[in-house]
Amino acid sequence: MITLHHCVSARSFRPLWALEEIGVPYALKMLPFPPRMMARIYLDVNPLGTVPAFEDDALFMTESAAICQYLAARYSAGALDVAPHEADFGRYLNFLHFGEATLTFPQTLVLRYTHFEPPERRQPQVAEDYAKWFHARLRTLAPLLERQDFLCAGRFTAADISVGYALMLAEHLGLSERFADSIARYWTRLREREGFRRAMRAQDDAARAQGVSPVPAPDMR
Amino acid sequence: MITLHHCVSARSFRPLWALEEIGVPYALKMLPFPPRMMARIYLDVNPLGTVPAFEDDALFMTESAAICQYLAARYSAGALDVAPHEADFGRYLNFLHFGEATLTFPQTLVLRYTHFEPPERRQPQVAEDYAKWFHARLRTLAPLLERQDFLCAGRFTAADISVGYALMLAEHLGLSERFADSIARYWTRLREREGFRRAMRAQDDAARAQGVSPVPAPDMR
Repeated sequence: MITLHHCVSARSFRPLWALEEIGVPYALKMLPFPPRMMARIYLDVNPLGTVPAFEDDALFMTESAAICQYLAARYSAGALDVAPHEADFGRYLNFLHFGEATLTFPQTLVLRYTHFEPPERRQPQVAEDYAKWFHARLRTLAPLLERQDFLCAGRFTAADISVGYALMLAEHLGLSERFADSIARYWTRLREREGFRRAMRAQDDAARAQGVSPVPAPDMR
Repeated sequence: MITLHHCVSARSFRPLWALEEIGVPYALKMLPFPPRMMARIYLDVNPLGTVPAFEDDALFMTESAAICQYLAARYSAGALDVAPHEADFGRYLNFLHFGEATLTFPQTLVLRYTHFEPPERRQPQVAEDYAKWFHARLRTLAPLLERQDFLCAGRFTAADISVGYALMLAEHLGLSERFADSIARYWTRLREREGFRRAMRAQDDAARAQGVSPVPAPDMR
């Protein structure tokens, strides 16, 4: 039995998207954002206080890109997964990590120091430093995405979910206007997927049913 | 043929350590830190300007934890790797990502805003915010490491290299004095490994042979 603890449009959207692409059954537990302040009892589930938290029977995971890779390997071999014997295995792993460590973490600095902190602790310089960082790193994908529809292996994989979420967050933060053309087209391709749309509907339905606001928190826009 | 582009004690130490644990031959190319400013020609190798850059024939990778996972799966199956059929596969993936995205990135903020930026752009508040963040996240590993020697699968794996490097960086930054006892003992256990010592010697020898300072850059201490 799979359970995913999720906040609207937070990093936990990655495993939600993977679950919907694969079509494996799961329970979705919605939390207000940020859960470590808005739902203290959640610390009993995840002492880190972060989303996602993911349970598959006795397994417990907290890293969104790792959960996507796990789901792909265990429940979608040959489709969302890229196996060690495939030529693009190394590229697949690289993009899985790149989407989070290189493209998402810098954006959380922008989020924190322009929206989340009280006015006297805001840091426009830091937000600007890391918005620049994000764009400089993202730009390196443009030539690749002029030549191919997805990041690796000639198909949509969990690596596209990892990077795709970084583009979704950039849109929330108003950073998507500076996307290079090939990256803007890639992002359109991703969000038009049936799996992406099902994941958006699933979080909306679950938020309404569980009494959580279905729009991203102010600091997530 | 494997080539690793590396700066002394930077994230590229992860794949260097993995290479030495596994015993696969490689060429080590040393760069001054940070290479995007100190060795502009390196941008022809890696447009991101970051280390590591890793080449295995036609494969090119830049994410240090992903390279460790790649090396483990391709060159050390059943030892440094944890396979999808093993019970701890999900935990292995989680720690591989946790070591970088959750434990290393916050430390780079401390590094940047206390050492690397010119005095007028330093941000003691941001450095303090992310030192706290690092300690809060790291602390969640203490109970696990009271019960077991390594993070998962009952053996030393690439996941220990991912998290181990975060502890090495914390020591450089003066953040290791606040390690919980079980974490301090785990860090001692890791750095006493023959593979770790060989990697330290390899970077020292290569730095001297290639005319790069063998001590970490001032902003890496």
